[in-house]
Amino acid sequence: MYYLSDFGSFHVGGRIVEVRNQPNRKVWFTETSYHDQDPNGEFLIEQVYVQYFIPQKRQYKWPLVLLHGGGLTGACWETTPDGRPGWLHNFLSAGFAVYVLDNVERGRSGFCAIENVWDGQPIQRTLKEAWDIFRFGKPENYQSGKPFKGLEFPLEYMEAFQRQFVPRWTSTSGAQVRGIGEALKKIGSCVLICHSQGGFLGGKAAVENIDVIKGLICVEASGWPRLTDINKDIAKKAPWLVLLGDYIDESPRWQSARTEAAEFCEHMNSLGGNASLISLPDVGFEGASHMLMMDRHSDKIAGWISKWIFQSCVE
Amino acid sequence: MYYLSDFGSFHVGGRIVEVRNQPNRKVWFTETSYHDQDPNGEFLIEQVYVQYFIPQKRQYKWPLVLLHGGGLTGACWETTPDGRPGWLHNFLSAGFAVYVLDNVERGRSGFCAIENVWDGQPIQRTLKEAWDIFRFGKPENYQSGKPFKGLEFPLEYMEAFQRQFVPRWTSTSGAQVRGIGEALKKIGSCVLICHSQGGFLGGKAAVENIDVIKGLICVEASGWPRLTDINKDIAKKAPWLVLLGDYIDESPRWQSARTEAAEFCEHMNSLGGNASLISLPDVGFEGASHMLMMDRHSDKIAGWISKWIFQSCVE
Repeated sequence: MYYLSDFGSFHVGGRIVEVRNQPNRKVWFTETSYHDQDPNGEFLIEQVYVQYFIPQKRQYKWPLVLLHGGGLTGACWETTPDGRPGWLHNFLSAGFAVYVLDNVERGRSGFCAIENVWDGQPIQRTLKEAWDIFRFGKPENYQSGKPFKGLEFPLEYMEAFQRQFVPRWTSTSGAQVRGIGEALKKIGSCVLICHSQGGFLGGKAAVENIDVIKGLICVEASGWPRLTDINKDIAKKAPWLVLLGDYIDESPRWQSARTEAAEFCEHMNSLGGNASLISLPDVGFEGASHMLMMDRHSDKIAGWISKWIFQSCVE
Repeated sequence: MYYLSDFGSFHVGGRIVEVRNQPNRKVWFTETSYHDQDPNGEFLIEQVYVQYFIPQKRQYKWPLVLLHGGGLTGACWETTPDGRPGWLHNFLSAGFAVYVLDNVERGRSGFCAIENVWDGQPIQRTLKEAWDIFRFGKPENYQSGKPFKGLEFPLEYMEAFQRQFVPRWTSTSGAQVRGIGEALKKIGSCVLICHSQGGFLGGKAAVENIDVIKGLICVEASGWPRLTDINKDIAKKAPWLVLLGDYIDESPRWQSARTEAAEFCEHMNSLGGNASLISLPDVGFEGASHMLMMDRHSDKIAGWISKWIFQSCVE
């Protein structure tokens, strides 16, 4: 049962672009209706969609903001592929107000379809690439589906998970960081939880909007803000929790990410910050995949994070 | 306050497409990380995202399914641009379980970024075109912002509304109808509420999945299923309510849509069906725009529709 004092959504941010001097084109809206479209004019692009859920009994002062990773949307925090309550539900039940973002270009934020505004084309992840990057099993075991030993990701619901995949651009980091920043400004003081690509984007937006950051949790981050962008004030503002799952040693890519994560934490702490790099198997979560908010023990990981927030993000 | 026995989401439908014999490409995932991407492999496309909310006290047997129109997503049913509870909230509060769809290519369903799978390019609506199509005011008054007399759309929050706009394809009707059909099969018996382009797509999906349709409400539909696809069994299965807002006489496009709506209802009724074409100003809702789920009197229109469902969709 979920008792909500409120829920809803809004969009923030974006900018106007203008198209000029293009010829009209005939556009079919349905099989039976078309019209002559004038493509010239103003368009609003690069906005961010935020959906929020406020529990009736809040147990924590500031909201959590959930930022998905690459090739995914805010849906990744909802019902898991095997049909259990997701982290959105877990955190709500723990008494947090939760704000879920769809980043610029993703989900209900929409993308920019105006030519020559964004560089390059959107790319889509193959199912095999997802298998490799998300650390479900050895690359050579994609076809057989043989998982890493002890994997907690519910592979038998793989297709339900694959349906969450959406395309992404690789040239939109600037707009995404701006968009996240607009959302943070609107939401105000909060604890930000970022996954994968969100670690880089959310981390950068947090550095640029550090005033509202009460804590930052980077889950399986694939990148980091530039160390040179961090000063003592930023480092000391709020605690950072950096979480990595299991099977890192199986993946050169994730070994590099782990090295970068360690360097980032070390830099933060050298400036007087409080950044902790936690390997989840070391705290009882063996078998955690990259998509650990969907793993069979996802609710327990959420519980562990909730406890960390209650204890660490207090000022 | 919202007391929910459950809420969450799932994706349904989709199909696998395969890419072969393409060269690798270097993909930058963040400013600091790239990898050599093999674009060959399998992709899952054309799935549909469904988010559901189940009230603790249900007052009606079957769920409502909300299908957005063109250039928009399921977000159009949530909080209105001026920050009031949207139809999602109104129907939940009236005791309906509510399922909100993001159609194929839109929102959290994602689009297909694989070349040569969908015809043509996505298009985006100019802000002026939206002004015209959504019947906020005369086309020549876009710049001045002078609305139609008595307009109920909250124009002072226009930018918040424009942020909801997303691109669309014009070649994906088939995939969209299939996707809606998959969602209807999964949800089971329901009352379907479609807006604008959704009238055509949802109507077609309803005709193809008539077994689960307990009622169909086409709000400002811009197109219709082919009359030749309707037989007596389909026509008699469930009542159809066709709603049109105000200012139709100001727009040749919407005059045509009204004519088509009247022809559709006449055809349904000639086959023994129960289809009603209602002009909202005739039942007390003067000033209703095309985006009437966001108009200032949106909650009263939702109440009127709820009453119709309770009275008419009973078998």
